[in-house]
Amino acid sequence: MAYLARFYDPQDEQLPSLLARNKTDSEALTEQVRSILAAVQEEGDEALFRFAKQFDKASLSELRVSEKEILDAEGRVPDDLKQALAVAYHNIKAFHARQRPGGEQLVVAPGVELSRKIVPIQRVGLYIPGGTAPLFSTTLMLAVPAQVALCPSVVLCTPPDSDGNVHPAILYAASMCGVKEIYKIGGAQAIAAMAYGTPSIEAVDKIFGPGNQYVTEAKIQVSGSCCAIDMPAGPSEVMVLASPASNPSYVASDLLSQAEHGRDSQAMLVVCAEQTQGFAFLDRVEQAMEDQLATLGRQEYLLSSLAGSRAFVHPDLKRCAALANAYAAEHLIINMNDEKTENRVLQWIVNAGSIFLGPYSCESAGDYASGTNHTLPTNGWARSYSGVSTDSFLKKITVQKLSREGLEGLAPTLLVMAQQEKLTAHRNAVAIRLGGER
Amino acid sequence: MAYLARFYDPQDEQLPSLLARNKTDSEALTEQVRSILAAVQEEGDEALFRFAKQFDKASLSELRVSEKEILDAEGRVPDDLKQALAVAYHNIKAFHARQRPGGEQLVVAPGVELSRKIVPIQRVGLYIPGGTAPLFSTTLMLAVPAQVALCPSVVLCTPPDSDGNVHPAILYAASMCGVKEIYKIGGAQAIAAMAYGTPSIEAVDKIFGPGNQYVTEAKIQVSGSCCAIDMPAGPSEVMVLASPASNPSYVASDLLSQAEHGRDSQAMLVVCAEQTQGFAFLDRVEQAMEDQLATLGRQEYLLSSLAGSRAFVHPDLKRCAALANAYAAEHLIINMNDEKTENRVLQWIVNAGSIFLGPYSCESAGDYASGTNHTLPTNGWARSYSGVSTDSFLKKITVQKLSREGLEGLAPTLLVMAQQEKLTAHRNAVAIRLGGER
Repeated sequence: MAYLARFYDPQDEQLPSLLARNKTDSEALTEQVRSILAAVQEEGDEALFRFAKQFDKASLSELRVSEKEILDAEGRVPDDLKQALAVAYHNIKAFHARQRPGGEQLVVAPGVELSRKIVPIQRVGLYIPGGTAPLFSTTLMLAVPAQVALCPSVVLCTPPDSDGNVHPAILYAASMCGVKEIYKIGGAQAIAAMAYGTPSIEAVDKIFGPGNQYVTEAKIQVSGSCCAIDMPAGPSEVMVLASPASNPSYVASDLLSQAEHGRDSQAMLVVCAEQTQGFAFLDRVEQAMEDQLATLGRQEYLLSSLAGSRAFVHPDLKRCAALANAYAAEHLIINMNDEKTENRVLQWIVNAGSIFLGPYSCESAGDYASGTNHTLPTNGWARSYSGVSTDSFLKKITVQKLSREGLEGLAPTLLVMAQQEKLTAHRNAVAIRLGGER
Repeated sequence: MAYLARFYDPQDEQLPSLLARNKTDSEALTEQVRSILAAVQEEGDEALFRFAKQFDKASLSELRVSEKEILDAEGRVPDDLKQALAVAYHNIKAFHARQRPGGEQLVVAPGVELSRKIVPIQRVGLYIPGGTAPLFSTTLMLAVPAQVALCPSVVLCTPPDSDGNVHPAILYAASMCGVKEIYKIGGAQAIAAMAYGTPSIEAVDKIFGPGNQYVTEAKIQVSGSCCAIDMPAGPSEVMVLASPASNPSYVASDLLSQAEHGRDSQAMLVVCAEQTQGFAFLDRVEQAMEDQLATLGRQEYLLSSLAGSRAFVHPDLKRCAALANAYAAEHLIINMNDEKTENRVLQWIVNAGSIFLGPYSCESAGDYASGTNHTLPTNGWARSYSGVSTDSFLKKITVQKLSREGLEGLAPTLLVMAQQEKLTAHRNAVAIRLGGER
């Protein structure tokens, strides 16, 4: 069966449409989110209780998860999952600890000392979506770097189920990272609560985490006025770079594992080959997809996502890398079944959220437990954004200390520049220090 | 004369209003900017020529600055300014080169190799405001880190004067940094041109630079849809932490040098002292301000800004630092005339864009030539944002490479987590690689 629309040697002018993401109309969404944000800003907690009833079908008596609920969660997480979370936690923590920057120091001229002071963002908000699966993996991906960065105040919001409960695995994963301030709030209203604050929730400085289109739109709206965000995230996506020598079952499984994320996920394939060979390989991939599909759940998501998927074939390796750069995938799997070729392609990649190299680096590894972060730029944002990392939870404050000698040395430069920019008070601040006036 | 409204021992509940920035009403602004963005998106270059005529009073025949104009600029920059720019360039480059991150590598488990690949953002846009002074300093502050980061494509936009020219010092500073693609476009329309692209200008991946409220609003609007920005910047501001032992002339000169930036700049002062002593010191500062004001230009800006300035007095050093953290100043000058005290305060500061330590570290030094970047978070964004640095022009792409052994080691963890998150295709992507199917 043909799951992937095929394109041989796509031309530059076709790329914008061939590499386009599934778009959702946003006019109505913008207004709907604006009204949710306004309600939380005006009514505070009352709006949060109302939205929990309306959107989550939950009648809450408290927004905050109690200490008892957090303690009880431990007993409700199966042992094999606890063990798995411990491995994932260890790997994520190790890699994110490696990312901690040192503060540079430089004496740029006699008496002119420059440095950067590394400081954690003081209060961060983590959003963990609800939906079909309990995202304890996302909990680790956000709470571990916050812990590594030593953020003193971390709050987590996630929607309750209709009984007013949060999945114990999310509470347990949060506890592993020392997060104790957890609220049963989901959707755009959670973003509003964290951005503006309410009587129950103190506002945060930066909001992290994925979410549906309401959450994303809410993050974008607050980011322009009062609260920083990690990135404007959208539906998840993968691009696989393969060759006819790649194992078609592996390629098929990677496309499918992306496609199951949601109805609007996107799975793209680039095969480095001449047309005949390339299309024959696509036949094998599609056969493998058909075989595997029969064994999988979430068929509705899989089929919906695959409808927007595409396969490209081109004989030139550099052009294949260029296609990957033009798409700027959240996840880029380079599986050419030849290490040297894979490394050559890696050198050329400049736009990607995270790269998975070789036949055994499936996206699932990075999604869960290898240690890289799975909160990554989608929708082409990999052209300008990095994924979430320890950096995302830190600030770098520049510090300068000039001695009198240092200022004297710089003064001729400063006086000329201030003069030419016609800023006489800037000039005066230098002159008065060196003139000895009091 | 009383330039600074005085507050002794301000209480927590007063801080939101006492530390508030000068707000501008933004409803009309939002719509006006939206229509400018839409015009550029729909009409392309034609809209840019029209806006140049309308806003800059310039009849342009070409949007792009010619090679000849760039070459001619060199002859029109005075030698003393060339020398000053050379010193500034050297210092800024040295400090920003020091900021280049290495890409970490970590073998987190046998056969599980993780790393980060550092890549420059491929095409960046720098905005240099026009207005009353030629901002060659801002040109260096944006173009030097782009050069240090090795961004392959750098474009600069700045409004022309009414003769259709760009100030030669801006062209010369851009040339120093290897920037050759320069356009005579200002305001919100410049942001639109860089974000969307037009027939003359290829779209960029990220936009940097300060600007008036139209530019800032335009940056915020495009940042939600298609183009990253450095930060949502607003009017410039300073907070000075002083003690009665500080030199009141220095303090006065720093407040004034901030106040001359624009009509809506803000200059705040915190004095660590008992009320009587503190107010006596404020008298001396205000006397010095009066003396200095008489010698300065830009009186209109100075007086307008000072109307929104405030002075706080508190005897407790820790409380003074807390006020600085609550304000989260773009520029924080710690000038207590006692090195030990200054260092203690420095340790407590967690929210600031850039810190100036000691009596000789005037803001002018960092504005121009010490080497730190002067593009900094304003309006309280220092709670979550760092200033522009080499990092701002780089991306960090995570890379993972698993061997078969590596995947086997991780598999139990991955299978349990995928199972519990009910993602069967994620599970399958692991299982199929280890089952040996083809």
